[in-house]
Amino acid sequence: MPKFLFSNIIGSFVFDESYKPVDGLLFKDIEQYKNKKEYEEKLKQKHKDATTPAEKELYNALLLFKNKKYFSQFHNKNIELTKIFIRESVNNDLLIIQTINSIDEINKNTNLLAKRLREWYSLYNPEVSNKVADHENFVSVITRKSKKQLLEELNIDENDSMGADLKDKDVSAILLLATQLNNLYKLKKHYEDYLKQLEKETCPNFMEVAGATIAAKLISHAGSLRRLVEMPSSTIQILGAEKALFRHMRNKKRNLPPKHGIIHEHQLIQKSREEMHGKAARALADKLSIAVKIDYFKGKFIGDKLKKGLVEKFKIQY
Amino acid sequence: MPKFLFSNIIGSFVFDESYKPVDGLLFKDIEQYKNKKEYEEKLKQKHKDATTPAEKELYNALLLFKNKKYFSQFHNKNIELTKIFIRESVNNDLLIIQTINSIDEINKNTNLLAKRLREWYSLYNPEVSNKVADHENFVSVITRKSKKQLLEELNIDENDSMGADLKDKDVSAILLLATQLNNLYKLKKHYEDYLKQLEKETCPNFMEVAGATIAAKLISHAGSLRRLVEMPSSTIQILGAEKALFRHMRNKKRNLPPKHGIIHEHQLIQKSREEMHGKAARALADKLSIAVKIDYFKGKFIGDKLKKGLVEKFKIQY
Repeated sequence: MPKFLFSNIIGSFVFDESYKPVDGLLFKDIEQYKNKKEYEEKLKQKHKDATTPAEKELYNALLLFKNKKYFSQFHNKNIELTKIFIRESVNNDLLIIQTINSIDEINKNTNLLAKRLREWYSLYNPEVSNKVADHENFVSVITRKSKKQLLEELNIDENDSMGADLKDKDVSAILLLATQLNNLYKLKKHYEDYLKQLEKETCPNFMEVAGATIAAKLISHAGSLRRLVEMPSSTIQILGAEKALFRHMRNKKRNLPPKHGIIHEHQLIQKSREEMHGKAARALADKLSIAVKIDYFKGKFIGDKLKKGLVEKFKIQY
Repeated sequence: MPKFLFSNIIGSFVFDESYKPVDGLLFKDIEQYKNKKEYEEKLKQKHKDATTPAEKELYNALLLFKNKKYFSQFHNKNIELTKIFIRESVNNDLLIIQTINSIDEINKNTNLLAKRLREWYSLYNPEVSNKVADHENFVSVITRKSKKQLLEELNIDENDSMGADLKDKDVSAILLLATQLNNLYKLKKHYEDYLKQLEKETCPNFMEVAGATIAAKLISHAGSLRRLVEMPSSTIQILGAEKALFRHMRNKKRNLPPKHGIIHEHQLIQKSREEMHGKAARALADKLSIAVKIDYFKGKFIGDKLKKGLVEKFKIQY
């Protein structure tokens, strides 16, 4: 008299040879479902001859659950389980992606707001705006020093300035924007540190070789660390240059294949001579591919050695 | 013996009939140039028969200044004068334009950052993000209340949430972006108040009829209050709809002329029935045109009466 034992999300069940249920334990919550092995053991002690059903047998046994009384149970428990899966799918990869995307967004925004600020502030003090080219520096300088101080530093007589004598309330309106921008720059710095922290936990080797920003951009572009692990190093090399790649594939004669994608910003490529770019990109992608695999499988830290290899080979410090 | 008297930026001069300089006063600075009438009076008392030279006579007298020794004086004084002109050209119009442009920019930025924040925060607490549609409200809520509080308010069990249990440092990274966004929203509000203040000083009638934001947008689009004064009301009506206007002018059969430009956002048009839009836009532009002229020529405040006329005619409160 053969018996079949198997579990689904509702519980563990024992069937006889005519596929009638003869015994079973219902799971009260997802916790019990996760420990289904335990419950199966208990049933096995009562039904020593119970086996796992083969395909055909399973099909016949499952017909039982076509009964409508099980539907709402399946529905609710599956939703519960899905929620748990979703909750547990959040890992450091996702946080890294969100952080680098936010940094990108803040970068864009500060640039646009800084241009606005310059235009506005130039009504008041055009000379300073012209002298300080860097946005961040400009914002910091005008929040810290008065127009008088700034003109003195530039050796410009106040009567010689082309800036208008605005009222206090007009000046303070301008400086509020500057203060806000300053805070956004600070936030960006904070996120850059946070990003390094996250990567130190998740992918220390990868970060060491790529640098925190490029590492994050590669992860964001691939979608996760896992997908990056599955890529050959030649794909990592041109990640982010998809447009150029497809242009090349459409017309091989006219368009050369891209030498590098996101890693183009890397110091090893930026600092090497034009004709070495391809070689450097290939070598870098090689090491990145090794590093990301070590990180994903929780290997030892050898990032410093990988980096040293590149530094010595190309005689470029980074 | 005719004598000619005239001034330029260097000084006031008296010439005899053979165009030789016989007397003169040099201006030490731009201040003296601005009071040139005074200096001319002084010279006139000494040379009672001096007249203002006619075109031909002026031409001959001016030959004197072809002498190179005057060049650097002309150069320097003209630069000085230009600087003063630039400085004095800054008026409330320009501040209004800068303010409305900054408000626009902040609007765009907060929208983009809020979308980022929602995506990021949804990893932690997706239920709240879905429930609160308005960005500003969402940002304010999540900075004020904890995940636990928020879920309780929504009657959701914490174990039922799809959000991940992030570490404190991860949550605080997300909330930093929210705090920053909150500050940007506050800045926007501040600028909206400041804009009203500026307009109250510069164009109270115009603001009363148009509303602060639309008034500022019209001024910004025209370039200045003065240019707005020079426009017929039909131009004010379609300011900002230039594309549609030119499309109409190229092909009159296919494209109707635009009924309204920037003023489209005005409550009078928004709240009136579709078929009344054109009529409302025309009436509104009429009153705006009157209001802006009164403001420019520093007339009395009749904005409330103009507005009342529109409200009564279209039976729309705004």
